[in-house]
Amino acid sequence: MSLKLYFSPGACSFVPHVLLEMSGAAFEPSMVKLHKGEQNSDEYKAINPRGQVPVLVNNGQPITQILAIVLHLDQVFPQAHFLPTEPMARAQALSTLAWMNNTVHPTFTHIFMPQKFSDQPEAQAAMKTYNTQLFRGMLGELQTLVLAAAAKGQTWLTGEHFSPLDAYSLTLTRWGTIAGIAPEAHPDLWAFVQKVAAVPAVARVIERERLQLDMGRPAA
Amino acid sequence: MSLKLYFSPGACSFVPHVLLEMSGAAFEPSMVKLHKGEQNSDEYKAINPRGQVPVLVNNGQPITQILAIVLHLDQVFPQAHFLPTEPMARAQALSTLAWMNNTVHPTFTHIFMPQKFSDQPEAQAAMKTYNTQLFRGMLGELQTLVLAAAAKGQTWLTGEHFSPLDAYSLTLTRWGTIAGIAPEAHPDLWAFVQKVAAVPAVARVIERERLQLDMGRPAA
Repeated sequence: MSLKLYFSPGACSFVPHVLLEMSGAAFEPSMVKLHKGEQNSDEYKAINPRGQVPVLVNNGQPITQILAIVLHLDQVFPQAHFLPTEPMARAQALSTLAWMNNTVHPTFTHIFMPQKFSDQPEAQAAMKTYNTQLFRGMLGELQTLVLAAAAKGQTWLTGEHFSPLDAYSLTLTRWGTIAGIAPEAHPDLWAFVQKVAAVPAVARVIERERLQLDMGRPAA
Repeated sequence: MSLKLYFSPGACSFVPHVLLEMSGAAFEPSMVKLHKGEQNSDEYKAINPRGQVPVLVNNGQPITQILAIVLHLDQVFPQAHFLPTEPMARAQALSTLAWMNNTVHPTFTHIFMPQKFSDQPEAQAAMKTYNTQLFRGMLGELQTLVLAAAAKGQTWLTGEHFSPLDAYSLTLTRWGTIAGIAPEAHPDLWAFVQKVAAVPAVARVIERERLQLDMGRPAA
């Protein structure tokens, strides 16, 4: 098995980046500089025609999409327990992961890259404002999940094992600070994200991606 | 095992609806009338607080999100071969399914329900126009996948077995006709959708949901 991950600092590629680091397996992290447009180069488009990160290349075969990569890593590294195996616990974990990926994540995209959804500057400004409020509510939902897990005595969102949901929570909460949603808005979520960041494998990825957790933009 | 599916005619709940019908297992289809706001009733919110379809209830436990439901049905009905088992083929199938769910599907939502992304009428109108063009391109990408599968001698998108990707293709192409993208725009995709619709289990679900494949709105 030869594993290579194309990632961009602070992007959602953080999630598989953390899982690979946790797996203990050798892998090659390859940085894609989105601000320099490297994702649109012919070389990168040959790997992912949609020009997005992350891409996991396993034995020369590229896999795109967080959900697919995470499920592949769970299949390849069963001993890491990235996802629960009991069918109903697994379904609930995947449901929350899918919600993060198809709802919370794109809500931030409407704030950070509104040009993906309209070419009209006024529409882009309207989307930024509206989706910042939606995103605030979604981080509230995420905090509710964190509190529910703690109330059940769980260390992490899916139980005793660290999962992609924990890593994604850090990414989404950090994005909130870019959108002007201060850490104090969701103190229990912020405390949980600190706990995630303190896991040694996570800390190594934060170091490699040179991430600052609180981007400290002015409050919205 | 007791299975109940909450669906709405023509919504993406069509995908698990078809898989359940194909499984041969007994299940209770329960219609949620979105145009009457039934998804916002206290009764329904108790099942899915986010007020969305589909929800699969297995032995009293609700599962939300297409990806989670599809993976659960694949785990519960392995003999149906809903998803490939070979790791790389499975990863590619899940990657395309995730793309349909987090990119193609929400692009249509910007056309059909732009009020989910902005409360400004002008911004909503701008999004409708812009995302109709994006959606047209995505149906083109989908047609490319259909042609690539046929070129490899595959009956369906993932190989010899019918998969959730085939069912989702029908839903997305049908939505295109609601957005004013005529079937003639992607003739090979349209021919593929006819083939999907002719599968007996699919035909039964189309009958139950009373679906018309070409909604025949004026061309965009």
